[in-house]
Amino acid sequence: MEKKLMPHWVELDSGRAFSIKHRVRYADTDRMDVVYHGSYVPMLEAARVETLREIGWVYSEMEQNGIMLPVIDLNLKYHKPAKYDQILSVESHIVSTPTAKIHFKFYIKHESELLVSADVVLAFVDSATGRARRAPAELISALEKAKLIHG
Amino acid sequence: MEKKLMPHWVELDSGRAFSIKHRVRYADTDRMDVVYHGSYVPMLEAARVETLREIGWVYSEMEQNGIMLPVIDLNLKYHKPAKYDQILSVESHIVSTPTAKIHFKFYIKHESELLVSADVVLAFVDSATGRARRAPAELISALEKAKLIHG
Amino acid sequence: MEKKLMPHWVELDSGRAFSIKHRVRYADTDRMDVVYHGSYVPMLEAARVETLREIGWVYSEMEQNGIMLPVIDLNLKYHKPAKYDQILSVESHIVSTPTAKIHFKFYIKHESELLVSADVVLAFVDSATGRARRAPAELISALEKAKLIHG
Amino acid sequence: MEKKLMPHWVELDSGRAFSIKHRVRYADTDRMDVVYHGSYVPMLEAARVETLREIGWVYSEMEQNGIMLPVIDLNLKYHKPAKYDQILSVESHIVSTPTAKIHFKFYIKHESELLVSADVVLAFVDSATGRARRAPAELISALEKAKLIHG
Repeated sequence: MEKKLMPHWVELDSGRAFSIKHRVRYADTDRMDVVYHGSYVPMLEAARVETLREIGWVYSEMEQNGIMLPVIDLNLKYHKPAKYDQILSVESHIVSTPTAKIHFKFYIKHESELLVSADVVLAFVDSATGRARRAPAELISALEKAKLIHG
Repeated sequence: MEKKLMPHWVELDSGRAFSIKHRVRYADTDRMDVVYHGSYVPMLEAARVETLREIGWVYSEMEQNGIMLPVIDLNLKYHKPAKYDQILSVESHIVSTPTAKIHFKFYIKHESELLVSADVVLAFVDSATGRARRAPAELISALEKAKLIHG
Repeated sequence: MEKKLMPHWVELDSGRAFSIKHRVRYADTDRMDVVYHGSYVPMLEAARVETLREIGWVYSEMEQNGIMLPVIDLNLKYHKPAKYDQILSVESHIVSTPTAKIHFKFYIKHESELLVSADVVLAFVDSATGRARRAPAELISALEKAKLIHG
Repeated sequence: MEKKLMPHWVELDSGRAFSIKHRVRYADTDRMDVVYHGSYVPMLEAARVETLREIGWVYSEMEQNGIMLPVIDLNLKYHKPAKYDQILSVESHIVSTPTAKIHFKFYIKHESELLVSADVVLAFVDSATGRARRAPAELISALEKAKLIHG
């Protein structure tokens, strides 16, 4: 695999972000010859799952341990279009210390150019009761240790 | 709703087909300004579910009654491209009397022009055991009565 | 087609909204047995295109006349999950008189229950120059006449 | 990136196949807690584009050089379901020497288990005239040299 497709950490003044890559396919595009505005949503899903996996939180295991994490708020701002066959990077970090919610911030870039910025808020839910619960303390520690929490 | 969007029966020499409509959206298209070849798959799903509903077989109820119907073979042949905002008709019939499998045939048309033809084979599975089972006799009767089975 | 699937106008104290229907398919769902959070995006696209068509503005014709309308901001708030085979209604109205942007508000409901609320902002762009332009005066008139603009 | 996610060549008695990886996301799944049958289509697209790229044929450049390659026949056979968070490998090879068409064969596996087998036929089309044309001789040479053509 080309090195430019490897996920990696990005060092920032405010902390660190984790960056994954996505090669734009025909399936992602629409008739305007750009990425369809809805096609970014699964990229954001992959970005947050891989960011958590990188710090030791496997989403599927968290579910097996009785915690679900549904999306409750999704916002995307489209600055520039992405094009077919471009390699997009999706950089993830966390906006504030998780409570009963976790707020991800994403920057989708082509090379150094910002194309889309996104905010996704998810809620911690106890699978057994269906009720809201607080973020696991170990997750908060892991996010802090990885310097992933910044505004 | 415009009349041309209404689902309806189509009389054929060999029996009848049930036709549903789909208006092509940006989400369905790709950068070649045509419908992406994978975007037809959910249209076929809707066509067979609505055809069964029309003759009294509600797929979600069949599931509640312990029968699942996974797709085991999917074939699409692409004759002409579909374009944005076209109203496509998806005509469904059954190729032969269901056994442990049911074989749907689909013709996707724009006006009278054939764009895509498709064959989808699904297997009857007992949810409790996960094993293959025969098609319910009442379903076969309903398909015959509706003249939906033809080659 | 069952009456409950027909698009129709909804009378409100603040004006009117246009409501289209979507039957939830397997393709829309995810492994939590609910509609995937990204699957609502094409429903919103269909809702705004059909709302504009209803008042005489065919999106594809507007494009042919040199006006594009890309999405620049998308926000969805998820209140309750939607389930397989439910008929969802997607109600559309406009939040304020369009300028160089048009701001749609959507309420996605199952029966009378609100599942998702969404805001989508699109920009009027001149296809020839790629530059922002103002909303056509005739479109604003048509929206006002249809009582679609309300906060 | 974990080594298991790296694309790589697979040596076979009959030649070689190129294998790419796909981590199953929520977006790919449906309410039966398995990958939706239509979700494999974009994986096949990525597999053939990356296989061609690996031997020096960049699909987007081929288009710029006036050759399009639309899908004309798609067949998938579903042997076993894929599950959330599994790493799927998609192995690609070519069934016979390309003429005016190219016939890809794909095996989608989880670990060593075959889940889906697929055949996809694409047609070489001259963009300028819209007419069928023969496969470029250099592409055939590259496929032969890479031992990608086998039955």
